[in-house]
Amino acid sequence: MSKIQAAITAVGGYVPKKILSNKDLETMVDTTDEWIKSRTGILERRILEDGKATSDMACIAVNELLQKRGISALEIDVVICCTITGDLIFPATANIICDKVGAKNAWGFDLAAACSGFLFGLETGSKFIESGKYKKVIVIGGDKMSAILDYTDRNTCIIFGDGTGAVLLEPNEEGLGICDSILRTDGSGREFLHQKAGGSLNPPTAETISAREHYVYQEGKTVFKFAVTNMAEVSKEIMDRNNLTAHDIDYLVAHQANKRIIDATADRMEIGSEKVLMNIQRYGNTTNGTLPLLLWDFEKQLKKGDTLILSTFGGGFTWGSIYLKWAYNS
Amino acid sequence: MSKIQAAITAVGGYVPKKILSNKDLETMVDTTDEWIKSRTGILERRILEDGKATSDMACIAVNELLQKRGISALEIDVVICCTITGDLIFPATANIICDKVGAKNAWGFDLAAACSGFLFGLETGSKFIESGKYKKVIVIGGDKMSAILDYTDRNTCIIFGDGTGAVLLEPNEEGLGICDSILRTDGSGREFLHQKAGGSLNPPTAETISAREHYVYQEGKTVFKFAVTNMAEVSKEIMDRNNLTAHDIDYLVAHQANKRIIDATADRMEIGSEKVLMNIQRYGNTTNGTLPLLLWDFEKQLKKGDTLILSTFGGGFTWGSIYLKWAYNS
Repeated sequence: MSKIQAAITAVGGYVPKKILSNKDLETMVDTTDEWIKSRTGILERRILEDGKATSDMACIAVNELLQKRGISALEIDVVICCTITGDLIFPATANIICDKVGAKNAWGFDLAAACSGFLFGLETGSKFIESGKYKKVIVIGGDKMSAILDYTDRNTCIIFGDGTGAVLLEPNEEGLGICDSILRTDGSGREFLHQKAGGSLNPPTAETISAREHYVYQEGKTVFKFAVTNMAEVSKEIMDRNNLTAHDIDYLVAHQANKRIIDATADRMEIGSEKVLMNIQRYGNTTNGTLPLLLWDFEKQLKKGDTLILSTFGGGFTWGSIYLKWAYNS
Repeated sequence: MSKIQAAITAVGGYVPKKILSNKDLETMVDTTDEWIKSRTGILERRILEDGKATSDMACIAVNELLQKRGISALEIDVVICCTITGDLIFPATANIICDKVGAKNAWGFDLAAACSGFLFGLETGSKFIESGKYKKVIVIGGDKMSAILDYTDRNTCIIFGDGTGAVLLEPNEEGLGICDSILRTDGSGREFLHQKAGGSLNPPTAETISAREHYVYQEGKTVFKFAVTNMAEVSKEIMDRNNLTAHDIDYLVAHQANKRIIDATADRMEIGSEKVLMNIQRYGNTTNGTLPLLLWDFEKQLKKGDTLILSTFGGGFTWGSIYLKWAYNS
């Protein structure tokens, strides 16, 4: 019997209609379109309306995925929702999504690992499939970052946007799917990228609200430095460990936090820009949404057997790479 | 080659020193010791001090576990922290724990599924082990419930307490460890047990603070009714599916939400009270902490080869049972 691997067999996605452009941000904080473009590569990002939350985006993505694959929600075994902006503190957004899409036979949970959540969730989902017990696992990555952004802080509000993607994992015995992963964390990096209040260390109070502590806090220069080094190194490491040369790689699917970090990773891997999937210019950093939204945007371009490296770096710090062989033509 | 199963090979735990008794609560809300005892089985619960958070409890539990097993933190591959009261909204508490205990080679994430989080995390951790890729996975379950309790609401503040436990999972090829699981969710139950504000649907504002929406909200009677039915049924179902009779079961390790729910489950399984592990009288409902704290409290009583049923029911709704064979004598 061949080894069971977990292959992505369908992709869905959703970004809100409302666009927040760099020009719009010029009227809100002391910044310029030119500065944002040159430093981050971002031109615009999407903003979800008030009264809607992460599950609303996720349900659209999941329903698209089910329709593309031609299966019923009742066939889903597990739903993993990777997010740092779940609808509620509890219950889990995964449970809400299961209810809304009618996945009555699934169980599920929310998974949090900041910007690396989706990559960590993909590894987790792959183990469910490899065990042989579960046949259809949905891994969702998405965030309503606008819910935790301070639109008076030009260091952070220009970077992030809202959006959610989802992938279906199924067993594959042809050698396609997830082949290897290297995942890392270094919690000492938490001081540079975090949200000060809202958890059990600093529960919400009138004081934490007025001190504006329920927002993303980032020391951009430090995070940038660690991100460039670590995302590039781990991407090279997974290539070396699997004897992959630049020639073998069809696409780099990298976390969309900053175009310069992605370019540095591609340089380290010695791959040309034509192999680098990029949509940061349209969505900004959607945190857990970046990787599945790349797969969603470029799905038609991906061919069965293509070699992909998925890489990420984010809060924690957390980072890693997954090497996978794409399993279908769309 | 035998099938690899994931066995619990060490347990750690921590409950804060400070005790909040039923008598103390009589002075805080309109309730009585007698009412709390007869309706819930709880006599007292523990409260973590201000300035400390879930990771502080978890690190003590993890360090105890490492010491008992005689291994270094550097040997840990993955840390799954099951909680709804992580230290921060991001980064993940798992990352903070890895940093504090020196698990420099581990990656990890937080897992949220309300009161069923630890059981869902145990199933997740078992798949990492069964895949053969990971050899040492720590699953932590814990909450600082006092951070999200309204101590003017007698319906909820009497029930919950603070505490955290942790287990180490390792491969076993002798047939010991996790043998089967049945896990379920029904997100339509979310209206009966949730926290209204704090997520992306209702981000924290001065209004949500003054409306006291950052606390556990529970419609106790409805939750009780669903819990009694579902926890009992799933516990019986996993017995039937594995051809286990009451005689085969050594211990029921059930979520400690209410003694009457646990008793109803034992009745449905037709097992005597001597087989029902119980510590609700001392800790109340520690949410993700209940199951690992039971294993911690009763570790000396558990013998290699014992048959355990772990069962839970909680917010979501989420519920389930795991059938496992205990793997060591302590």
